[in-house]
Amino acid sequence: MWSMEKAGPPGAEVGDEILLARAYLSAVAEPPAPALAGFIAAHGASRAAEVVRSGSAPPSVADEVDARREHVSGEAALEAAAMAGLRLVTPEHSGWPHKSFDSLADATAIGLPGMAAPIALWVRGQVAFAESLGTSVAIVGARAASGYGERVAAEFAHGLAIEGYTVVSGAAYGIDGAAHRGALAAGRPTIAFLACGADIDYPSGHSMLLRAIGEQGAVVSEYAPGTEPRKHRFLVRNRLIAACGQGTVVVEAGARSGASNTANTADALGRPVMAVPGPVTSKSSVGCHEMVRSGKALLVTNVDHVREVLSPLGVGPTTDLPVPAKATDSLDRVAKQLHDALSDSAATSADELARDSGLPLRKVRALLPALELAGLAVREERGWSRNPT
Amino acid sequence: MWSMEKAGPPGAEVGDEILLARAYLSAVAEPPAPALAGFIAAHGASRAAEVVRSGSAPPSVADEVDARREHVSGEAALEAAAMAGLRLVTPEHSGWPHKSFDSLADATAIGLPGMAAPIALWVRGQVAFAESLGTSVAIVGARAASGYGERVAAEFAHGLAIEGYTVVSGAAYGIDGAAHRGALAAGRPTIAFLACGADIDYPSGHSMLLRAIGEQGAVVSEYAPGTEPRKHRFLVRNRLIAACGQGTVVVEAGARSGASNTANTADALGRPVMAVPGPVTSKSSVGCHEMVRSGKALLVTNVDHVREVLSPLGVGPTTDLPVPAKATDSLDRVAKQLHDALSDSAATSADELARDSGLPLRKVRALLPALELAGLAVREERGWSRNPT
Repeated sequence: MWSMEKAGPPGAEVGDEILLARAYLSAVAEPPAPALAGFIAAHGASRAAEVVRSGSAPPSVADEVDARREHVSGEAALEAAAMAGLRLVTPEHSGWPHKSFDSLADATAIGLPGMAAPIALWVRGQVAFAESLGTSVAIVGARAASGYGERVAAEFAHGLAIEGYTVVSGAAYGIDGAAHRGALAAGRPTIAFLACGADIDYPSGHSMLLRAIGEQGAVVSEYAPGTEPRKHRFLVRNRLIAACGQGTVVVEAGARSGASNTANTADALGRPVMAVPGPVTSKSSVGCHEMVRSGKALLVTNVDHVREVLSPLGVGPTTDLPVPAKATDSLDRVAKQLHDALSDSAATSADELARDSGLPLRKVRALLPALELAGLAVREERGWSRNPT
Repeated sequence: MWSMEKAGPPGAEVGDEILLARAYLSAVAEPPAPALAGFIAAHGASRAAEVVRSGSAPPSVADEVDARREHVSGEAALEAAAMAGLRLVTPEHSGWPHKSFDSLADATAIGLPGMAAPIALWVRGQVAFAESLGTSVAIVGARAASGYGERVAAEFAHGLAIEGYTVVSGAAYGIDGAAHRGALAAGRPTIAFLACGADIDYPSGHSMLLRAIGEQGAVVSEYAPGTEPRKHRFLVRNRLIAACGQGTVVVEAGARSGASNTANTADALGRPVMAVPGPVTSKSSVGCHEMVRSGKALLVTNVDHVREVLSPLGVGPTTDLPVPAKATDSLDRVAKQLHDALSDSAATSADELARDSGLPLRKVRALLPALELAGLAVREERGWSRNPT
């Protein structure tokens, strides 16, 4: 039946009872629902759904579910998902990204209820979820991005995707969209977490982009199909982006940007936060610069910098500053001083060179043959000159 | 006599014998001359000059002076200075910036011979030296600067000059020139240290700028009049810029920039180093970004950031991130959740709002009056709506 059809391979190993229970539980509470999540972990999805529906859940859980427990249905949610071509992925599926979401459970355990793991995920796209998140990076930033920011976001995403990283973001205008596009251009999967049902194209101007993401990667949401976007849902959604990236790169962030919220969440989850600098004259980079100044984010300027942070053992630290080599680099201060005194054209005597450079004559006499050996000085009839190289 | 005429007020208190001795000693050795500096400190300028001229100086000193001791003259140097309108400022003058140069002496003492303090300074301009360096900042950067870099350098210099900081730099093309111009535009003194005689306009394209600096501030060099610029002299000169700024701000620096050398010197002298970020797509900012990544420099994006570093007690830490306030800022997560559920137009019942927001009905009933009080919700006949503010 529908659940089996739509669930497809990863769903195949999970029975309808679980799917129905999880569908109901994901619709009954407004995320994050730490009490409900804990209740499910303790009693299992089926039993938890039963108790919630019957209205006999403990008070903390009741607070999260009472408002909707009689008004939502797992069947209806799964039907809607089937219509929209969404599949339900639950913790009971082998494809569930436990590695990513355990950090949320841990954060909840240490008293961050806002970090509760999702009850289930509604997914548009067939990409193998857990695997693709095995090597991942979140790239986020301001919606009000500059051309510079979008360009850098696309280049970072493209470069990291080619290196095998799955780019995770929020499908928003600006940096998010550029990051998804960069990953798609590399022919790699990318994952977009929405703050509304995965069946809704939000923002509407990104419906083509969302379709492409769904075909090559996945459009994902913890909200039941049909759930509208709401301001607070974007902040709640951000925790999933932060949790699903091994690290978070903020490309541009204004003084008041959701990207800063994602960065703070990643930081709270113990994930490295990186920020890309920009012109100090650009409002769009204020947030990034502040993250670096406050020590919350590492400054990164290229893909290698990000790779060093994400897989410190995977890649050796790149020499950050490739300095163009020069023939005179090997010379010490004194030898440079003498070399500077040599003329390109006229031959100069050792005495003159000594006076001119201020070096003792014996030192000049000793150094000149060395410079000649190094191919930096030429011995002539009437003295020495610089080797025009 | 010439020395008196030219020395002017600060020179007045120093006798000709000292001036002649210092003039000779500043010409006889190629800076840095740590052994000679130590010898002068131990025996005084007059006696040191006498011993050096007679060729009976100890070996370490002899190495620094023998090549020129018979070929330079204090009288000639002072004559040339008089012709060029330069005055000689020596450690014996009250106007000598001991506070700035003691750091060099200390660095030499701990085994950095390249840091030796200058023997004397040749100065174009009447500005009171020590006083003007009492509150100072070095602003340096690449010659191959971008328009962005020059604009930022000029704005930083202008802003810091207005705050009473004397801007110190090297008069080079690019960032240095922009920094001097910014300070001049603020009507404040600025000091340029040259890698050649202070009587030489280098770079020649900056002759007008150097004249303006000499009139409003000072063009300074430890090299005797007529000394030509040489590659190694720029690096040697950089130590004076680093020592004369309470801190050093690098605005743009490429992968191979003298500005990095100045920054390293400032760092070695225990002076704070600051770097201004820029587009990661700009070669001119590579050096600045690396200084921040390596922890050598603090990232600064405006004048207040620099002031915080230079006078931490003088100015309170500015709130780095002025966040625009919003009426809903004061609301907690749950209240925001309810506020999001309110409709701008249609009135909604508490029951509907509970279902919609997923919040317990009793919580909704308790929160709505609070939102009303906060002017964020409006109570109507058939329910509640959002206050259109």
